[in-house]
Amino acid sequence: MSHTPEEFKPLFAKIDELKPKFIERLKKAVSIPGVSGDESLRSEVVKTAYFLKDELIKLGAQDIQIKELGLQPPPVSTKGLELPPIVLSRFGNDPSKKTVLVYGHYDVQPALLEDGWDTDPFTLTEKNNVLYGRGASDDKGPVIGWLNAIEAHKELGLELPVNLITVFEGMEESGSLGLDELIRQEAKNYFKVVDAVTISDNYWLGTTKPVLTYGLRGVNYYQVEIKGPGSDLHSGLFGGIVAEPLNDLVKILATLVDTNGQILIKGIDEQVAPLTKEEDELYNDIEYDVKDLNQATNSDTALYQSKKDILQHRWRYPSLSIHGIEGAFYEPGAKTVIPAKVIGKFSIRTVPNISSDDLTKLVIDHINNEFVKLKSPNKINASLIHDGDYWISNPHNENFTAASKATEAVWGIKPDLTREGGSIPITLTFEKELGTDVLLLPLGRGDDGAHSTNEKIDVSNYIEGVKTLSAYLHYYGKGN
Amino acid sequence: MSHTPEEFKPLFAKIDELKPKFIERLKKAVSIPGVSGDESLRSEVVKTAYFLKDELIKLGAQDIQIKELGLQPPPVSTKGLELPPIVLSRFGNDPSKKTVLVYGHYDVQPALLEDGWDTDPFTLTEKNNVLYGRGASDDKGPVIGWLNAIEAHKELGLELPVNLITVFEGMEESGSLGLDELIRQEAKNYFKVVDAVTISDNYWLGTTKPVLTYGLRGVNYYQVEIKGPGSDLHSGLFGGIVAEPLNDLVKILATLVDTNGQILIKGIDEQVAPLTKEEDELYNDIEYDVKDLNQATNSDTALYQSKKDILQHRWRYPSLSIHGIEGAFYEPGAKTVIPAKVIGKFSIRTVPNISSDDLTKLVIDHINNEFVKLKSPNKINASLIHDGDYWISNPHNENFTAASKATEAVWGIKPDLTREGGSIPITLTFEKELGTDVLLLPLGRGDDGAHSTNEKIDVSNYIEGVKTLSAYLHYYGKGN
Repeated sequence: MSHTPEEFKPLFAKIDELKPKFIERLKKAVSIPGVSGDESLRSEVVKTAYFLKDELIKLGAQDIQIKELGLQPPPVSTKGLELPPIVLSRFGNDPSKKTVLVYGHYDVQPALLEDGWDTDPFTLTEKNNVLYGRGASDDKGPVIGWLNAIEAHKELGLELPVNLITVFEGMEESGSLGLDELIRQEAKNYFKVVDAVTISDNYWLGTTKPVLTYGLRGVNYYQVEIKGPGSDLHSGLFGGIVAEPLNDLVKILATLVDTNGQILIKGIDEQVAPLTKEEDELYNDIEYDVKDLNQATNSDTALYQSKKDILQHRWRYPSLSIHGIEGAFYEPGAKTVIPAKVIGKFSIRTVPNISSDDLTKLVIDHINNEFVKLKSPNKINASLIHDGDYWISNPHNENFTAASKATEAVWGIKPDLTREGGSIPITLTFEKELGTDVLLLPLGRGDDGAHSTNEKIDVSNYIEGVKTLSAYLHYYGKGN
Repeated sequence: MSHTPEEFKPLFAKIDELKPKFIERLKKAVSIPGVSGDESLRSEVVKTAYFLKDELIKLGAQDIQIKELGLQPPPVSTKGLELPPIVLSRFGNDPSKKTVLVYGHYDVQPALLEDGWDTDPFTLTEKNNVLYGRGASDDKGPVIGWLNAIEAHKELGLELPVNLITVFEGMEESGSLGLDELIRQEAKNYFKVVDAVTISDNYWLGTTKPVLTYGLRGVNYYQVEIKGPGSDLHSGLFGGIVAEPLNDLVKILATLVDTNGQILIKGIDEQVAPLTKEEDELYNDIEYDVKDLNQATNSDTALYQSKKDILQHRWRYPSLSIHGIEGAFYEPGAKTVIPAKVIGKFSIRTVPNISSDDLTKLVIDHINNEFVKLKSPNKINASLIHDGDYWISNPHNENFTAASKATEAVWGIKPDLTREGGSIPITLTFEKELGTDVLLLPLGRGDDGAHSTNEKIDVSNYIEGVKTLSAYLHYYGKGN
């Protein structure tokens, strides 16, 4: 490839040469059905941890630690269910080198052939240069990708340009139980000298252009409980003579956001960081179109038609979604119930500079004010269920610049700088606890179907991804 | 009792004398756990039918027929599940006498000791002159009550004053499957000569005053389906950039009825029969208070404070209740889903002179108009799921007058003339198919807990009820 810098030619050639071995390694990883959300498969999740340990040993890792996290806290169906361990390892401990911590997860989402997979989800299957299998892209592909990068260096007799710490967890698809605590514990121990954290666990925006991700929205999840009668009532006997909680609730929920997605709760817009010209320009080059959105939703329900509007409302403006109602009738068919107590659930995606506490005050006040207007004899209680902060990094810092150069060296194109609408809470934990920059460096494409049937990673993404990870370490190691 | 008319003294004395036997008969009936909604107990339901058949034989019934209804239609878990039969019998066939058809059901609601019963639900237990047991009031008490009335006449050597046809079904608690069809079939056969139909399967309004019931509201059940994205979406990725069906739906549902229970769909009020002075006066003597309502709902959620307002809005005005939403998140906890398709469910209780077709047109038009205002790219489809007509009778006709006199003869007080907010569809079927007046003549009290734990019938209601049924037959037989 003409754009490959001279210095990387031997390394990239070695990676190409090892391609069959790399695919074989991913195949072995995929073959272990380590679904963290399925308690009956917990031993398979643990087995995956030990598979990684063996691979790390073969690659010459030092100080491999299998960090046990104890019993899974309730609710849990299996008595005494152990959490899968976190696997730590270290490659190099040279004080003259920078230290990069790479994080990935070895557990996967559930997958059954009968869900509609075209091939067995736990048998990595290559068709037309695409590798199909559960975890191929989320997140076994990237985890094995790091190991491949190390192996390529080893085979070539090339020293790693940085000290590398690997952190592989097995509960990411089930709430990352125990991980925050471990990061806190090891911040001054195993992770004492970490200069940068890189997470490869998201996706390109589309299918053709590599990206680096520098922002995530946060999420504040709320519930509104309205209760009236002491127990559910029959609408024949009581319809028309009692105040119905569900009637109050739909009226409250109807005041939250308009059909165009504009949040109707006053005071939130004012908290959003103004869009600067510089930030706005970041969107100019990004490859995206309303067609991509409509294709992803398989519908014609886009609220915006222009690329900038769509991406900015996905990444840098807050949004409010109503998720459902607990306590009301939800089955198919007809039931003439007046629910006695209903709980509406909605969440707000947060962005700079919304403060969670301020937001919650605005939300609760809004709901209580709207409820007062209804003059209902029912009782209301609105509350925050949980919150997770937004994350934003400087896409021009040393870490991102190294990844950008690496991308260009491999793909011959500058990556798009993207944000994501969802949250990856661990990003914030690493940043806060280790006090370092975090980079999100995805390998897979936007259509990989991470949590869906027929999850895949393109062979080119997998192999060029190994090159990108390798080149990134070099650029970062030498200070670009 | 001083108010007992001379003519009934021997009959009532006989009924008092037979009290232990009547309680024993009810005990036997209650001991068979014929829960029609529990497929595993279907054989017990059938057993109850044959128990009744044996009792009818002992009492000298003629032409007893066990009407098989074939297989229960889907959905059903048990393959080849037979419906419980309808038990028909006849006492007398004298062309010079009037013929009264009495209907009751021998199946019951589910009941488990661990649901919170103080005594075994299938062992009729007397405590402080109250008989506790599943079916004691709904509807084995009244069914056995008719048999007791027949027995009292037989023991006394007293001829029944009318020809009596008994119709006992075993699927009332599960939709009365097969009953409508059987009534149609037998309208010109077994039920050829029926002058009046009497159903004892509802309750006094309160706990102290007997009632006769002359009206029922109908019900039209609607659903509003709104669909947008092709499949459920993650609110992190898509929140703020797609039109969310659930957001549209809560806005539509919020336009249906106000917090005071006033239906906001235009044109419905105009269809409601005006309240005449005569009808309004029927409410004057009824024993009821807002305290009764608040006690029944175990809350302070009454929309009206005056007796008349409450009862008229329960019985003679329409009401609209929102029941729930299918397709949205409904479990405890938090889920950040944007549901792709949601179906709101609500129903309208109908009253004279609302026409179901006209109502449906108003409802669908209203919903479609409100949806147009939202300018949403989602798709809406509002439809009627099912409807059942209201029923109203003349509370001063021959049948009601006979029952009113009977009540006075037993209780020394004129019964309250009530309606009910719910529907008993079979009432309409009898009226339409047989072309006769129908009377609802309840035995139990408003606090009997028909579908609840610790269902009961007071011994006085049970025994005085047998007297009332007996006296009613006499008054009706002789044309009052």
